[in-house]
Amino acid sequence: MYYKDLSKLIYRIFKKHNLSSKDSKICSDAITQSELVEATSHGLSRLKMYCDRINKKVINPKPKFKIKKISQSIYHIDADNSIGFVAAQKATNIAIKTAISKGFAMIGVKNSGHYGASSYYINQAVKKNLIALCFTNAPSAIAPYGSKKKMFGTNPISFGAPTKFKYPFIFDSSVSIINRGKIRLAAKQKKNIPYGVALDKSGKITTNPKKALEGVQLPIAGFRGSGLAWMVDILSGIFTGAAHGKSVRDPFDDFSGPQNVGHLFIFFKSSLFTNNFSKRMKESIINVKKLPKTKGTREIFYPGQQKYMKYNKNVKKKIKIPNKIKIEIKKLLVK
Amino acid sequence: MYYKDLSKLIYRIFKKHNLSSKDSKICSDAITQSELVEATSHGLSRLKMYCDRINKKVINPKPKFKIKKISQSIYHIDADNSIGFVAAQKATNIAIKTAISKGFAMIGVKNSGHYGASSYYINQAVKKNLIALCFTNAPSAIAPYGSKKKMFGTNPISFGAPTKFKYPFIFDSSVSIINRGKIRLAAKQKKNIPYGVALDKSGKITTNPKKALEGVQLPIAGFRGSGLAWMVDILSGIFTGAAHGKSVRDPFDDFSGPQNVGHLFIFFKSSLFTNNFSKRMKESIINVKKLPKTKGTREIFYPGQQKYMKYNKNVKKKIKIPNKIKIEIKKLLVK
Repeated sequence: MYYKDLSKLIYRIFKKHNLSSKDSKICSDAITQSELVEATSHGLSRLKMYCDRINKKVINPKPKFKIKKISQSIYHIDADNSIGFVAAQKATNIAIKTAISKGFAMIGVKNSGHYGASSYYINQAVKKNLIALCFTNAPSAIAPYGSKKKMFGTNPISFGAPTKFKYPFIFDSSVSIINRGKIRLAAKQKKNIPYGVALDKSGKITTNPKKALEGVQLPIAGFRGSGLAWMVDILSGIFTGAAHGKSVRDPFDDFSGPQNVGHLFIFFKSSLFTNNFSKRMKESIINVKKLPKTKGTREIFYPGQQKYMKYNKNVKKKIKIPNKIKIEIKKLLVK
Repeated sequence: MYYKDLSKLIYRIFKKHNLSSKDSKICSDAITQSELVEATSHGLSRLKMYCDRINKKVINPKPKFKIKKISQSIYHIDADNSIGFVAAQKATNIAIKTAISKGFAMIGVKNSGHYGASSYYINQAVKKNLIALCFTNAPSAIAPYGSKKKMFGTNPISFGAPTKFKYPFIFDSSVSIINRGKIRLAAKQKKNIPYGVALDKSGKITTNPKKALEGVQLPIAGFRGSGLAWMVDILSGIFTGAAHGKSVRDPFDDFSGPQNVGHLFIFFKSSLFTNNFSKRMKESIINVKKLPKTKGTREIFYPGQQKYMKYNKNVKKKIKIPNKIKIEIKKLLVK
């Protein structure tokens, strides 16, 4: 299916699930984008989950946002248990507008949900010549350093900056060795996960994705990754008034209430301190690309480059949809 | 030597090297603090280097800062090749004052130098109930993912938040597996470094600290650590107008000009979005401490806790100074 048709299909599904036309468009755009950059764990593989949560009334399809202006550059959004995409898009819109007019914007969001890939929102800021930082928490998956039970989500750190190249610089990485979404996808596709990235319930290393989901994921670099996961939980959860630690509900498994995920968006003009930011970025990228490469490396890529190369390739061709998801889509359409 | 005497000694050394009384006090406080929290790689082990750089006129002992107000919350400092401590302390003072009165502050600094441990500045903000993020670049040491030659510094990510406990939450971590300062210290103490954290000039793993300093350090978690190092270089170097990538001079080895290190300080009120931030932090810490522990773990510490426990112990007792450094100090005093 070409992406435009896919996008229309997703739009119809969300409309059927009581989202407004505007909000259905926001969600379908974000999910389609994930498929286009091949971040499939944040795309169609979650569509049924979002709809299930709407059906079970733990996502509010008609949220009334409470937006509070704290200062000329700072806003707080209570997202009223909205689907994450819509809350994050609202925050992104305010953050972009504010950063352009005031130089800087910080938007905290509470009572939100899983919003797909952070890079989707970061990219919108970068297109406006902004530097963007974005943090969100996620359901408990990572064991803090020194513990064998999970507490923090895979809590991504996302950062973007404009370049003078075709593709933006967008670093968007969870602080676990492997993304939870990738484990879910492996489970769906009945594939194994790599050795050494997750433990089962009893604390033993496992390559079985289902056992890994019941157990814990390992943070990158021991106490460093553990500290980064905690930092993201503080910034996006504790600070914004959202749920934090174990109180963030797993969207797939826990329908006892809304997720209450929190997000923090920090956007600012790349030209605040120098008038040649993108030129300096270009220099930096060129310098890295010129370095001697390790064996087997043909080109050193900057963060985001490969993702948006995939995007450019995929907009022109049919997107492959796994059979299992095709069946889910059909069912969601005839709700 | 007790820390108060040590502090006076360092003060005298900087005075002798033409720093003002006020600036000598700032430097001696910061270095003493590093010794008290046992971050020795950022303490006395660098004293001679700072003085050498002043003598060779690549640190300006009498800098004239150019401070530019960009907006009510944003400032830019051209630190005129000041010693890093003095520039970072100035930025910290402005950031604290601005964050308290306006909710948020962002201060970019260029033409600065190595400023010791980021946690020293972060801690000052946290004491004022602020959340603090701080980024600085450093001389080239890490190979970007896909390359076997160094480009980025060990570029720390530092973050702090107030708790209701005795010790602040301060995460301050380089994005290399091992800190460069620790390799330098190992070289000074003629000890080996762990296996698998650094490569020699030819790209082979080495445990010899001198060979590691000539070669490259490995980033944490492959492309993730590499991306984080690049992000910090963009925020603190490219964005602020400072040197970036390989153009940041190594303070120990390169006396051909000033370092031109850049820093970025982002401080904001912890109470912006909720009125019970520290209570929520306390909850988070208690929840983590209650988790089942891995074998051999007696207590799960939060970032910063152990450092400030050491501080409390060390303020009451004599600080051990390695002989080599004692000799350096003596020489610096009779300059």
